[in-house]
Amino acid sequence: MTELKNNLLLKALRKEKVERPPVWMMRQAGRYLPDYIKLREKYDFFTRVQTPELATEITLQPVHQIGVDAAIIFSDILVIPQAMGVQVLMEEGKGPSLPNTIKTQKDIDALNTSNVDEHLKYVFDALALTKKELNGAVPLIGFAGAPWTIFCYMIEGKGSKTWDKAKQFAYTETNLAHQLLQKITTITIEYLTTQLQSGADCVQVFDSWAGSLSPEDFKTFAQPYLLQITDAVKDSGPVILFPKGTWYALEDLSKSSASAIGLDWTVSPKQARALTNNNITLQGNFDPAKLLAPIPQIKKWVKEMIDEFGAQNYIANLGHGITPNVPVDNAKAFVEAVKEYKDKKN
Amino acid sequence: MTELKNNLLLKALRKEKVERPPVWMMRQAGRYLPDYIKLREKYDFFTRVQTPELATEITLQPVHQIGVDAAIIFSDILVIPQAMGVQVLMEEGKGPSLPNTIKTQKDIDALNTSNVDEHLKYVFDALALTKKELNGAVPLIGFAGAPWTIFCYMIEGKGSKTWDKAKQFAYTETNLAHQLLQKITTITIEYLTTQLQSGADCVQVFDSWAGSLSPEDFKTFAQPYLLQITDAVKDSGPVILFPKGTWYALEDLSKSSASAIGLDWTVSPKQARALTNNNITLQGNFDPAKLLAPIPQIKKWVKEMIDEFGAQNYIANLGHGITPNVPVDNAKAFVEAVKEYKDKKN
Repeated sequence: MTELKNNLLLKALRKEKVERPPVWMMRQAGRYLPDYIKLREKYDFFTRVQTPELATEITLQPVHQIGVDAAIIFSDILVIPQAMGVQVLMEEGKGPSLPNTIKTQKDIDALNTSNVDEHLKYVFDALALTKKELNGAVPLIGFAGAPWTIFCYMIEGKGSKTWDKAKQFAYTETNLAHQLLQKITTITIEYLTTQLQSGADCVQVFDSWAGSLSPEDFKTFAQPYLLQITDAVKDSGPVILFPKGTWYALEDLSKSSASAIGLDWTVSPKQARALTNNNITLQGNFDPAKLLAPIPQIKKWVKEMIDEFGAQNYIANLGHGITPNVPVDNAKAFVEAVKEYKDKKN
Repeated sequence: MTELKNNLLLKALRKEKVERPPVWMMRQAGRYLPDYIKLREKYDFFTRVQTPELATEITLQPVHQIGVDAAIIFSDILVIPQAMGVQVLMEEGKGPSLPNTIKTQKDIDALNTSNVDEHLKYVFDALALTKKELNGAVPLIGFAGAPWTIFCYMIEGKGSKTWDKAKQFAYTETNLAHQLLQKITTITIEYLTTQLQSGADCVQVFDSWAGSLSPEDFKTFAQPYLLQITDAVKDSGPVILFPKGTWYALEDLSKSSASAIGLDWTVSPKQARALTNNNITLQGNFDPAKLLAPIPQIKKWVKEMIDEFGAQNYIANLGHGITPNVPVDNAKAFVEAVKEYKDKKN
């Protein structure tokens, strides 16, 4: 395997000393980049995801154009329901829909959890090709959706503000809910492990809808499955957990076998360090809306953010995916500000 | 003024001892009630809001049909932009839209902040009529949107997941943003004070989108205006603040002149008591999705919630508005469970 020229991300994940924090951005390969938009006009969503050459091209765009310290494979969290045998439709700009939602024991029994290497071969091929093309420039991140978040889509059938139906299923069909969460967990473990074997240097688990749960429900329906994944995958490579909106779980998760926890901006760096007893690498948490401010202001905020997190055991990132309306120069300014950071303690 | 037969809510707001906690539900007058739906079929939204007889009828429905311990006037937070001279459209089931968003100094200068008594006469008339019809049965709650939340709609022009445009305006036109927030604050103070003079026994300020802000931004763009309102209104009647999603502000707000703080379910009762140093009445925080569970389960959860909050200095409520899909019997079960609660410490 080619040695990494820039291994800041992996050093931060191992809590090794770095000259400055690594930086990448959630959704960095995507809708704010003109070259991505050109590809989107030619190929539909699943063609982009399922064609390794296209996924690789999209994955590399922000590495070359924005200068991030890591690539994250272009894919989607809903490839897991697809691999389980559930139809997923993606209408450009409208979000996903799953016409056949899970309702019964029979629905759950019918779900596939095996032959991940076949069903998701295109992801593994894209990782291998991207790894080759990167030629050691920066590490490559793989990812999956967290079981609770995938569960939400499989029950609800589409996005929701409140995830009412998903919660109703969890509250009224609790046994079935846990069966489904376990099936998602099982296939996700296989999926992430194979990603790490195919070229990913680390993986991130996105629990985008975890914050819809109360602390108690998070402990019941989300946390055990996140921990199961982390424990099963950690020997294959470092795991970053990103359970959005769950400040209340930070203490518990800081004691897990995850290498880092991603944060949104509703927790201050200082609070997050306190809640995690300063004993795990933290990632985040710049509000993407702040990328719409003037560039000097962005750079000032980034510096303040790093000052507050500290430059060590820290990965600079956004607190959620970059939005389509961010000017490319502003995204670049975010990355540059991290690269210009001088750690006073060094 | 007729003496209140049931003054549990006001006692809880004054931190006086109660035999059991008072209970009401955000959006209790609304879309889950068949009698409301019948009125909705006959009268459009603003006819319902602006006709005191209709607003009163709708306000009384949950008092008679669900047995809540307080009425909350049927109205909308966007009556404030309307009173300021901004057009607000409401398409049934689609949410509000404000075609003329605020962009410039001139737009802000043009906003009206006076003659609230004229512009919002229909609200004050509805309060007076409802108060009369209630005949002292339960207290009557008035309300307004918080400045940050109203600002979001006035800049964005419609609902948003991220409130990007509102934030961009706040970050790039900070001076104008504060001018606008101050204008909203000024008219809201007048509005809430007049509500209290017109029949409301207390008022609640809904900061529905506060949780979109980082702790620092909340302190800049939301908190000062909430405190200004509370300080100015408190001598006219008790104020409940409900800044949804801002667990990080609980300590600060517990030291304010508010009589209570409303909570959503992303903070546990125990955490909320700790964050507020147990020195303010708390309200909430049942996840409305839990009202979709079987009734015995709802009742069990309500009892646990009260056990955890404690029966004193507490107002049982949801953590957000009741959703249209909740069966009436389940809403009733929520209220009944609170009424059946026996305080072991009594």
